[in-house]
Amino acid sequence: MSEQIFPKRLAEGYQSFLQGRFGRERARYQELAEQGQNPDTLLIGCCDSRVPPEVIFDAGPGELFVVRNVANLAPPYKPNDDYHGTSAAIEFAVMGLKVKHIVVMGHAQCGGVRAYTEMEADPYMRPLAPGDFIGRWIRLLAPAAEGLGAPSEPLSDWSERLNHESIKASLANLRSFPYIATLEARGWLSLHGAYFGVATGELLVLNEATGQFHQIAAEAYRDLFADAPRF
Amino acid sequence: MSEQIFPKRLAEGYQSFLQGRFGRERARYQELAEQGQNPDTLLIGCCDSRVPPEVIFDAGPGELFVVRNVANLAPPYKPNDDYHGTSAAIEFAVMGLKVKHIVVMGHAQCGGVRAYTEMEADPYMRPLAPGDFIGRWIRLLAPAAEGLGAPSEPLSDWSERLNHESIKASLANLRSFPYIATLEARGWLSLHGAYFGVATGELLVLNEATGQFHQIAAEAYRDLFADAPRF
Amino acid sequence: MSEQIFPKRLAEGYQSFLQGRFGRERARYQELAEQGQNPDTLLIGCCDSRVPPEVIFDAGPGELFVVRNVANLAPPYKPNDDYHGTSAAIEFAVMGLKVKHIVVMGHAQCGGVRAYTEMEADPYMRPLAPGDFIGRWIRLLAPAAEGLGAPSEPLSDWSERLNHESIKASLANLRSFPYIATLEARGWLSLHGAYFGVATGELLVLNEATGQFHQIAAEAYRDLFADAPRF
Amino acid sequence: MSEQIFPKRLAEGYQSFLQGRFGRERARYQELAEQGQNPDTLLIGCCDSRVPPEVIFDAGPGELFVVRNVANLAPPYKPNDDYHGTSAAIEFAVMGLKVKHIVVMGHAQCGGVRAYTEMEADPYMRPLAPGDFIGRWIRLLAPAAEGLGAPSEPLSDWSERLNHESIKASLANLRSFPYIATLEARGWLSLHGAYFGVATGELLVLNEATGQFHQIAAEAYRDLFADAPRF
Repeated sequence: MSEQIFPKRLAEGYQSFLQGRFGRERARYQELAEQGQNPDTLLIGCCDSRVPPEVIFDAGPGELFVVRNVANLAPPYKPNDDYHGTSAAIEFAVMGLKVKHIVVMGHAQCGGVRAYTEMEADPYMRPLAPGDFIGRWIRLLAPAAEGLGAPSEPLSDWSERLNHESIKASLANLRSFPYIATLEARGWLSLHGAYFGVATGELLVLNEATGQFHQIAAEAYRDLFADAPRF
Repeated sequence: MSEQIFPKRLAEGYQSFLQGRFGRERARYQELAEQGQNPDTLLIGCCDSRVPPEVIFDAGPGELFVVRNVANLAPPYKPNDDYHGTSAAIEFAVMGLKVKHIVVMGHAQCGGVRAYTEMEADPYMRPLAPGDFIGRWIRLLAPAAEGLGAPSEPLSDWSERLNHESIKASLANLRSFPYIATLEARGWLSLHGAYFGVATGELLVLNEATGQFHQIAAEAYRDLFADAPRF
Repeated sequence: MSEQIFPKRLAEGYQSFLQGRFGRERARYQELAEQGQNPDTLLIGCCDSRVPPEVIFDAGPGELFVVRNVANLAPPYKPNDDYHGTSAAIEFAVMGLKVKHIVVMGHAQCGGVRAYTEMEADPYMRPLAPGDFIGRWIRLLAPAAEGLGAPSEPLSDWSERLNHESIKASLANLRSFPYIATLEARGWLSLHGAYFGVATGELLVLNEATGQFHQIAAEAYRDLFADAPRF
Repeated sequence: MSEQIFPKRLAEGYQSFLQGRFGRERARYQELAEQGQNPDTLLIGCCDSRVPPEVIFDAGPGELFVVRNVANLAPPYKPNDDYHGTSAAIEFAVMGLKVKHIVVMGHAQCGGVRAYTEMEADPYMRPLAPGDFIGRWIRLLAPAAEGLGAPSEPLSDWSERLNHESIKASLANLRSFPYIATLEARGWLSLHGAYFGVATGELLVLNEATGQFHQIAAEAYRDLFADAPRF
């Protein structure tokens, strides 16, 4: 490998950033470099290329501490001798950076949730690769799937239901971290579930009291969707 | 929790996205929702709030499949009974989405690398939390640190050297995934190291032949930095 | 499970055996039960349902000690703390039963050899199951494949060449067992390679001096094939 | 080695097969070669020369996918970096060929079970060979032996009890393969234990509800055994 073959699209995109956004926000970047980051929010999102959190929340530099894994999962609190990147990021954000919010953001048509659905529907489904890291990772969805019964057709509907349940299960897993439970109980930390509809741009947020997902602050942007075909 | 207290800053940012970027790219989002994602690049980046990959590469929806963990680490290939989010994301991107590039992007002033440095310099350093997920996670940096000797003052310099070595070690770890080694040998996949200087906006890319990091396509943006104090 | 649902086809087949062959050879079975087995030959064959060694060699009870695994492989001599069924069977046959011959019998259209071929031709090939026992097992074919270059179309031809080379490699692996090398050197044990053509019924045997496979004792049964369409 | 010294007995047996069974079933072999195998049953049997499954079940070409190892053992599900022939064959049969039945068939006077018994009874027992593959392999019998106490005289009786327990333990091991447990739970796969008495020709099948072995469909062949000395 040599620098010459660094992907052209990325090199061009970087120059666009440098001449555009970085130029405008240079002072902010310099300040963040000197004083360190101090984000308010930990966002747990999906690796999916369609759902970058900074874009969806139009976030500036320093605003969101973001861990992204397949299917935006927060594992349960299970310290052992192995390394666990997501749990490490949660610990770093909550105990190191002292964030005030944790947002678990799912999205429609998630390939990881879909893979779990297909694996459950067809026991002969082949794993992606010999190491089967994906198979073991998405088995974290199993507790969320328990209340749904066996996958039923159309699988895409079952998969979206699982997707919603998975966000609730991740919030429950977060609360299995002792310090998260404590900080939430004291009102120093709050947890949120959100769900982005890729096709429509709709953002749903979870009302944990009812277990339902609702449009966020619908009245505030009702006009926006006046001419949208269906939403 | 109820939807009413969804962080105001995020709700506003989302509306800005909806009225701005989503409005302009609605057709692209709809297409991506219907046809699925097909990104060319897997980017392994840091959770740090100052280094969102889509911003730094001005990437559009569908372009980058992004895993973000503390210190942008790719672990070695070690399948076991435990779940491993980063290895799962690598498997999903390479074997499922068949990406053509993997970019490991580090950045200056990384808190995870710094934490490893301090832990090495001071054996009395306390862990962030009882579970010590961060301690075990950043121990993945140990092989990269081997050639550097014990941490020396100023720690920030030692930390930056480790930061560079860590990117090289992550590339080596990626090549311990059998299919990555095979696909790279066949020319179907290429691996890249990059490093973002938060303060300056500078992007360095790794020349693996020399082991050195260089400014990317320097001539292309020389003018930009004409008035930069030092670079 | 209960005995009632023992597969009907097998229950009927067993009664056919009992009333037929067992009835005729009862004395031989009783003698073998009382005096123990004393086979002359260890045969290493494939699990494939089309190539039962006792049928192909019309063998009676007590004649063939048979280990069957996917792709009729003899692994190299590598004692370690793990269990290895084929090496155990080889040890039992050679050192316990003191067989005089070892026959490695391959066959056309072997699914295990084919799986290796496809895995080599397409690095994106998915494993059969999460544990990937088959992937690791057939990687025992790698040394045999080394001299063949990369898989080329038609894959079925490349696969059959690998199939032949694999039999030679298994003989070499057998000779890596110290006692097999010693016993062969003293003329107390001989090793043989054979290959069964499922479609034609043809049996080829390996001439190790030339590395070629030849029809067995062609002159002896030339008449047999006089009216065979092609052979 | 040269083809001239291929064991005479095998060459003659092959010609008998060719003129007899192959001649009669040539169309079936050709069909199986062209369309591939599609067996209903995976049989895990012993290498012993007295118990060829195709003979005992009078099976035709294409009916039984057969793995044979010393003492007809199914190991527990333990994927690791080593190769495991029996687990590979199980994976190939269940996930590749989608067999409907798995039969573990033991037999009386098994040398492998006997070897374990003697090894337990006499700590001074020597291994068969320096590599001690057999010793490690038959240690797979240890969990089955746990409920039996120390070996007691007559060893042959203790050995037969272990033999029966071993079949049950193999069924339990099979169920430790996640996909086997799932497929059995869905009714797509069934597991069976069987035991062949070499001297008498008797076939016992395991009733897992009672843990007892019973004569298969006894009424169907009662007459056959009317004059058998003891049974």
